[in-house]
Amino acid sequence: MVTPLLDEDTLDLKGCEKLLEHLIKGGVHGVFILGTTGEGPSLKQSLQLELIQFVCGQVAGRVPVLVGVMGASFKEAARMAASAEEYGAYAVVVAPPIFYQISQDELYGFTNQLIREISLPVYLYNNPGLTKVSFGVETIEKLIRNPQVIGIKDSSADMSYYNRLLELTRPSGMPLLMGPEELLMESVLIGGGGGVPGGGNAFPELFVKIYGSAKAGKLEEALSLQREVMKISRTLYSGSGYGSSNVINGIKCALKHLDICNDYLAQPLQKASPEKEKKIRQFLAAS
Amino acid sequence: MVTPLLDEDTLDLKGCEKLLEHLIKGGVHGVFILGTTGEGPSLKQSLQLELIQFVCGQVAGRVPVLVGVMGASFKEAARMAASAEEYGAYAVVVAPPIFYQISQDELYGFTNQLIREISLPVYLYNNPGLTKVSFGVETIEKLIRNPQVIGIKDSSADMSYYNRLLELTRPSGMPLLMGPEELLMESVLIGGGGGVPGGGNAFPELFVKIYGSAKAGKLEEALSLQREVMKISRTLYSGSGYGSSNVINGIKCALKHLDICNDYLAQPLQKASPEKEKKIRQFLAAS
Amino acid sequence: MVTPLLDEDTLDLKGCEKLLEHLIKGGVHGVFILGTTGEGPSLKQSLQLELIQFVCGQVAGRVPVLVGVMGASFKEAARMAASAEEYGAYAVVVAPPIFYQISQDELYGFTNQLIREISLPVYLYNNPGLTKVSFGVETIEKLIRNPQVIGIKDSSADMSYYNRLLELTRPSGMPLLMGPEELLMESVLIGGGGGVPGGGNAFPELFVKIYGSAKAGKLEEALSLQREVMKISRTLYSGSGYGSSNVINGIKCALKHLDICNDYLAQPLQKASPEKEKKIRQFLAAS
Amino acid sequence: MVTPLLDEDTLDLKGCEKLLEHLIKGGVHGVFILGTTGEGPSLKQSLQLELIQFVCGQVAGRVPVLVGVMGASFKEAARMAASAEEYGAYAVVVAPPIFYQISQDELYGFTNQLIREISLPVYLYNNPGLTKVSFGVETIEKLIRNPQVIGIKDSSADMSYYNRLLELTRPSGMPLLMGPEELLMESVLIGGGGGVPGGGNAFPELFVKIYGSAKAGKLEEALSLQREVMKISRTLYSGSGYGSSNVINGIKCALKHLDICNDYLAQPLQKASPEKEKKIRQFLAAS
Repeated sequence: MVTPLLDEDTLDLKGCEKLLEHLIKGGVHGVFILGTTGEGPSLKQSLQLELIQFVCGQVAGRVPVLVGVMGASFKEAARMAASAEEYGAYAVVVAPPIFYQISQDELYGFTNQLIREISLPVYLYNNPGLTKVSFGVETIEKLIRNPQVIGIKDSSADMSYYNRLLELTRPSGMPLLMGPEELLMESVLIGGGGGVPGGGNAFPELFVKIYGSAKAGKLEEALSLQREVMKISRTLYSGSGYGSSNVINGIKCALKHLDICNDYLAQPLQKASPEKEKKIRQFLAAS
Repeated sequence: MVTPLLDEDTLDLKGCEKLLEHLIKGGVHGVFILGTTGEGPSLKQSLQLELIQFVCGQVAGRVPVLVGVMGASFKEAARMAASAEEYGAYAVVVAPPIFYQISQDELYGFTNQLIREISLPVYLYNNPGLTKVSFGVETIEKLIRNPQVIGIKDSSADMSYYNRLLELTRPSGMPLLMGPEELLMESVLIGGGGGVPGGGNAFPELFVKIYGSAKAGKLEEALSLQREVMKISRTLYSGSGYGSSNVINGIKCALKHLDICNDYLAQPLQKASPEKEKKIRQFLAAS
Repeated sequence: MVTPLLDEDTLDLKGCEKLLEHLIKGGVHGVFILGTTGEGPSLKQSLQLELIQFVCGQVAGRVPVLVGVMGASFKEAARMAASAEEYGAYAVVVAPPIFYQISQDELYGFTNQLIREISLPVYLYNNPGLTKVSFGVETIEKLIRNPQVIGIKDSSADMSYYNRLLELTRPSGMPLLMGPEELLMESVLIGGGGGVPGGGNAFPELFVKIYGSAKAGKLEEALSLQREVMKISRTLYSGSGYGSSNVINGIKCALKHLDICNDYLAQPLQKASPEKEKKIRQFLAAS
Repeated sequence: MVTPLLDEDTLDLKGCEKLLEHLIKGGVHGVFILGTTGEGPSLKQSLQLELIQFVCGQVAGRVPVLVGVMGASFKEAARMAASAEEYGAYAVVVAPPIFYQISQDELYGFTNQLIREISLPVYLYNNPGLTKVSFGVETIEKLIRNPQVIGIKDSSADMSYYNRLLELTRPSGMPLLMGPEELLMESVLIGGGGGVPGGGNAFPELFVKIYGSAKAGKLEEALSLQREVMKISRTLYSGSGYGSSNVINGIKCALKHLDICNDYLAQPLQKASPEKEKKIRQFLAAS
């Protein structure tokens, strides 16, 4: 879920409410806040806490709320997880620390220790493009021996790696979630547990349907829905910036024109350009 | 300056005091805290604030105190800078935001806006290995038009880039500081304004001398001192981990055996291995 | 197809013959020689020509023979393609030039011009990990307007990119072949035209079956065969070297123990280690 | 030295002659052909041989001729070295094989074996941006034990690495040559043995002077000449392409306007754009 903002310092609470109702009505199986698409690391801590509290209150147990814990400081990560528990989140999604380049040993040490300081169930969040380090397959293997770890989200877009994780998680049935929505269908076809598609903010029903048809092995239907995903990807995520920037400003722009929430992005990211905005408006009008 | 720690949550204040006196006695021209070597991003904010306050108090104006501002959140960066001012720091050293991959436009937008929210003088801190984005030469050119920007620290280890920055800063004489200490001598020889050598925590006099001899054009003397730097580099910074990890745990290990401060490293980094510790002890004994 | 060698300078012709018969008996739909797995760039030109001639003669039209054209020199690439035609190859598989980092403009210029100098049908060969440059989607779009281009082989292992190429090739039905065998099944499930699996050298039937079951939409069967692929991948391609090295020495080692051909690798690659050889022998014995 | 070409297949022999006389008159201490700037890998072998023969004949022993050996095939590298010897070259400059990603073990094996097949003295040529692998410091240490290795050319632009090599070569006085001309002055100041500056094709005297003043420790003079180098760099090597492309087309464009040789570049590189050509013409007119 994106984080609706009025400005650098203020949540768009009305937008948050509308977005959450839009998602739940769209049939999502859970809500993941404060991840990469949620601009988690860009928000000051008090705003993050306010968002967790608001979302947990608004969702009120209708679906699980997962909270991203992405930071450079161990102590602040632990504190964020404690707050998530207090406000009623279902689980935290733990990424590697985001500053230093670290070895697998250091990554294991940090994550293992952090999980011990946390009481909530944990998803591991692999996102090497932004955190610089990838959870090695052996590191994952050791970490998931801890029953507190109940799932994995992989945003590496590396299907060879994903296939190796699938082999690790198949015996236990632990859900292995796909980050990039362009790969959601195929990941579910080969046994993946679902996805965390950014485009689901604007079009939750579409992604819920893709998941359902891929899981049921309805190949033709899944492929045809996948073509719609590729159209969204080409339109909403276009632009000259880097990946996350293009994705987040595209989603927020679409949500604004769907009359759901404000399109402000926290520093350092920037709104969609006027040309992109026009393209998205036309796309929405034609949908 | 490294940050002496007793554990994840506690400054080694006695160690901070001894380290600061060691540095000032060694002749340093300033103290830079909460940078990469200072594990700034790993420390929770309240600990960062405590350190700033302590250091400014202990230094008491004898040399300028520069405070690293490295984070993912604009609002927290601004707040940290405001606190640095309040406690009496001389300047802040501003790095790009550390999470998203961003364009030069986004980098300029973030940094320019941040400088406006700050009253202290600003150094720009280029460290693309860790922040993913390098301040482009054109971006630097635009930013240093603002008289509030009074210097640059470049830790890219890219001398071609450094040479291009030198051309930009030569007319005004703005100091261009070198990050990696192995390149300090040559950067000063070609017109650089000094350095921020991590090894200076343990051996401040050596680096002060290198700076002096290079600045005075005493080539032979500078080259001979440089050989000592290379020995330190080979011994203290060896190891199988990544750069920052090896550097910081080597410095802290040496400081411990110089009886200056504790060698605890904040998560995710780890202490020097026993083999490395032994090597460093022998090196110090032989010095 | 790997290139069976007796030493740096000599083809293992007996091994070539046995390997080709093994492949054809295994049901392969074509043979691709002198690609990355075929150590094309490591072989001197006269040896490459000898191999093309031998393979075309031995195959004798039973399946199409595709010849990799991977080099740094335009003129030599053109000459290799002319020889491939003369010896009766079905098509050439053209990679970007392998030395300089080049722009999409330069890549388009080189490839477009090369195709003009070639009479055979052309596959485009994307392998950015080794050629440094990826065929951009727009570059592919322009190049495939030329009817001489009849297919694409993508070894990027980037499924997001692959999905975008699928959209380009869907209207015409142009085959889009998958490089990494771990991704063969899923690429065919979503509409891909097949694969060029290195492991097919040793186990051609397995990969022919995977292709068939995925193409027929038999999901359960495909997934179960895919598990065998992952076992091969874990065993044959293990090792401490880089990807290509591990893959090629694993395949050649298995072929040696299947009594098909010699396991010599051309410089700079090296044979499987004794430990790896033992592991592969045990794997084959248990199969 | 760049390779003057009339077209893809034809040397500009008149240009070669004029360029060589221009260089020798400019005071160069040697001529390095068929390196990266010489477009070695782009030329078919017969053209490479023709160039070696022509250059050795024209130079006629006035300065040493060094021949780059850069390819993917061991046997062809060995053959090129043998031809270089036959035509009277002074040494060969051996780069890692240019296709596969390889380990230090594989790199050592390839290079060590290649040196054994060569009778000429050898320079090692480090150019990791293009060959993907860097000669590790330990690998260099082992290779230079062989007295046939008489020098190193480092084009990594990594001064920390260069400093470590300097320590290895200082005891024997083995020349350690700098690739990027922007770093020539400082490398000589700290003990380097000279450089292989591409810009020396057009302005040989300037670079000979820089070398001389840096070697003599005349810091002020060296710095002032260095400023001219930076001007050349900014003008001749500007452009939107990648490094080598911009450098080579800039040099050839300048040589054309200095009336020395043709500005044709072998595929895949392309001539300077008309805008760049105009800029260079103005620069030359003002010099």
